[in-house]
Amino acid sequence: MSEKEKQIKLGLFLAPQGHHLAAWRYPSTASSELMSFDYYHKLAQTAERGKFDMLFFADNYAFAESFPEAAAQTVPIRPEPITLLSALAAVTKHIGLAATASTTYNEPFHIARKFGSLDHLSQGRAAWNVVTSADQAEAMNFHSDAHLLHALRYERAEEFLNVVKGLWNSWEDDAFVVDKDEARFADSSKLHTLHHKGKWFSVRGPLHLPRPVQGFPVIIQAGGSEPGKELAARTADVIFAAWQTLEEAQLFYSDIKGRVVKHGRSPDDLKIMPGVFPIIGRTEAEADEKQKELEELIPQEAGVRLLSTLISFDLSPYPVDGPLPKLPELEQVNGVKSRFTLLKDLAEREGLTIRQLYKRIAGARGHREIKGTPVQIADQLEDWFRQGAADGFNIMPPYMPGGLEEFVDLVVPELQRRGLFRTEYTGRTLREHLELSRPPHPAAQR
Amino acid sequence: MSEKEKQIKLGLFLAPQGHHLAAWRYPSTASSELMSFDYYHKLAQTAERGKFDMLFFADNYAFAESFPEAAAQTVPIRPEPITLLSALAAVTKHIGLAATASTTYNEPFHIARKFGSLDHLSQGRAAWNVVTSADQAEAMNFHSDAHLLHALRYERAEEFLNVVKGLWNSWEDDAFVVDKDEARFADSSKLHTLHHKGKWFSVRGPLHLPRPVQGFPVIIQAGGSEPGKELAARTADVIFAAWQTLEEAQLFYSDIKGRVVKHGRSPDDLKIMPGVFPIIGRTEAEADEKQKELEELIPQEAGVRLLSTLISFDLSPYPVDGPLPKLPELEQVNGVKSRFTLLKDLAEREGLTIRQLYKRIAGARGHREIKGTPVQIADQLEDWFRQGAADGFNIMPPYMPGGLEEFVDLVVPELQRRGLFRTEYTGRTLREHLELSRPPHPAAQR
Repeated sequence: MSEKEKQIKLGLFLAPQGHHLAAWRYPSTASSELMSFDYYHKLAQTAERGKFDMLFFADNYAFAESFPEAAAQTVPIRPEPITLLSALAAVTKHIGLAATASTTYNEPFHIARKFGSLDHLSQGRAAWNVVTSADQAEAMNFHSDAHLLHALRYERAEEFLNVVKGLWNSWEDDAFVVDKDEARFADSSKLHTLHHKGKWFSVRGPLHLPRPVQGFPVIIQAGGSEPGKELAARTADVIFAAWQTLEEAQLFYSDIKGRVVKHGRSPDDLKIMPGVFPIIGRTEAEADEKQKELEELIPQEAGVRLLSTLISFDLSPYPVDGPLPKLPELEQVNGVKSRFTLLKDLAEREGLTIRQLYKRIAGARGHREIKGTPVQIADQLEDWFRQGAADGFNIMPPYMPGGLEEFVDLVVPELQRRGLFRTEYTGRTLREHLELSRPPHPAAQR
Repeated sequence: MSEKEKQIKLGLFLAPQGHHLAAWRYPSTASSELMSFDYYHKLAQTAERGKFDMLFFADNYAFAESFPEAAAQTVPIRPEPITLLSALAAVTKHIGLAATASTTYNEPFHIARKFGSLDHLSQGRAAWNVVTSADQAEAMNFHSDAHLLHALRYERAEEFLNVVKGLWNSWEDDAFVVDKDEARFADSSKLHTLHHKGKWFSVRGPLHLPRPVQGFPVIIQAGGSEPGKELAARTADVIFAAWQTLEEAQLFYSDIKGRVVKHGRSPDDLKIMPGVFPIIGRTEAEADEKQKELEELIPQEAGVRLLSTLISFDLSPYPVDGPLPKLPELEQVNGVKSRFTLLKDLAEREGLTIRQLYKRIAGARGHREIKGTPVQIADQLEDWFRQGAADGFNIMPPYMPGGLEEFVDLVVPELQRRGLFRTEYTGRTLREHLELSRPPHPAAQR
């Protein structure tokens, strides 16, 4: 790999209907097929044809607060990630499969098993997007009325990750001998019982699953907060954060890579892949036209509601063509703190009204929005890649399947022409696609 | 359906290597492929070629107590059921997919989503085998050192089931209008928020998943205990119990059907499908030979260990060629009470030693063992079916894939010749295969 020019990594950030709030109203969107496996099968085939590193499926465990009204105008349904990605594992060969699961509302034993099993069934293509859940509404589906405080969620997340990795190490890689004559299926000296007793979890182990094909499935994190950054620097393989400007992204990139090194890892051990929302036209005018069309399809209520959710503050009582009201201090926000700051700063910097702000974020939801011809899109990706802002990107098509097809058919070939992106899969596992090493078993390091 | 002769229902009770304790040592068993998706894909294709109603995958959340030693001689690994069956959904068309999940160590919100999602992805082929977990070792992988008492487990299970069904009813069947012009994705008046607050769970809902294709995925239960029978009579679609003799099975069958009626359901609303372990030979001598070969492959330690687990009592200190020691009273057993009784009675009735008993149960583990030519096997199935002991059977091949292939190629055609089993799938969903009606949404019953 060292002789070759560094390559951009690409994830498909899969939103069933596309990422724009009004995507389901876009004329070409297959909005009645959002629970049909055939639909996702075709999307995955398209992404694999585009040689994407992985398919990334976000998740949370509740509607936003404002149902049933919200349900009327947006898409309130989607498949569950583990079931969907397991099904897609059966009909794809190369692409990585990243599912989201929360450390706040799951058990480490189940998560270790499900992702470990997905890694085996997909022959080494599983990834776990670790989230801590930021929504009060999610708490109410799991016993508790109160959402865990931000700092405690991260403390729990770190212990959760340790338990899961410990369970994945239950068996050494060469533990299975399968000797029929000698009646020896496994070498029991290579079985390790975890006996974990911590503040949050008590899990004995071992796991009744061999060590995952990748050692550990790829660990993805998103958190842009201080504890989120520290956790990622210590434990993540991929980080997925939201940045609007090159400067912010560069600052974040060097901050994170510095922390990675501080924790004794190589900078290449953690790939930074910010979200990018591309509006692609064959001409600039066509791209502008598409953007305008999407913006006009946003129902006003749905726009205000989305913005309220992202900023963790109810904006519905305020005039939609006026400025943001006075917002609480950052310390009082028990949601995604980084998103709160990003949106508040953006509104102040550009003097946006509530309506202007929701139109601005109704696509990328705070991630970077890029627009133009395939060459212009490629320029913008290359720019961040070459200038130390990103190792790759999580592509967020505005509408589906069209937005993905355009990216695969128009932008990917342009990146390939520039030598920035693979023309064929060369690796077998997701770790190989991402140029991440396979974590050895602790017993093999002695 | 009423004009047609009643048909036998068939499940494939999938044990990766086969059900016999020594299956992995059987010469034709693909024991090195037990984590390979291709292996399960072929098994599912064979079962679908055999027109099985469903594929049934058991599960628990721990090894038996005695690892690492146990791991050496048996098969201590397998895929996780939700991931495996979701993957199989993508490559099968007709067969039902039944996964086990415990109500003691899961959250209703996750279970409702996963099985609901599997039902959508498979277009109506999901089933949930509801278990309450009977093993102390499982408790230790989920916070608690003490396993929940038997009666409390069933109380929790019933509330769990109610919550899950409530979540599946979040949306009425016709809630989705997907009107792009009017910006109306869903009819929010058809969305129902659960607001459940009970002794065990507090779950607000709603679920962000449309009502499952089957209304509810098929609900399977196994419990042979008194609370298990009552729960099944009220809430299950299929019951799977272990019986050795026709008389026991008939008694159970009429007991359960009576309870079903008492709870206001039709006897046909609950299908009784006991487990059957068939040893098939082209001749009787060949079948005898196979059984002997399997018995001789059992490592003695593994045999004693299995028996100890099934009977919830450690037999390792006792002479293997002596009788069972004095066992505790039934009330003190915090495991599978029905299995304890069955094994104790069997040993007493036939005066078996520990070794003789473990050989007897090393295949069927307490389920019915039948042996012979395809005609003799079909006779034994037909006998129970016609004499009011079973609506169908959960077939437990001794070794895989051979035991399944023999059943499909030799026994299924014999059942078909007798008009007792379908020659083609006529239904689309698992409920249709099993001749179970689709539960209507409560709002549609008003």
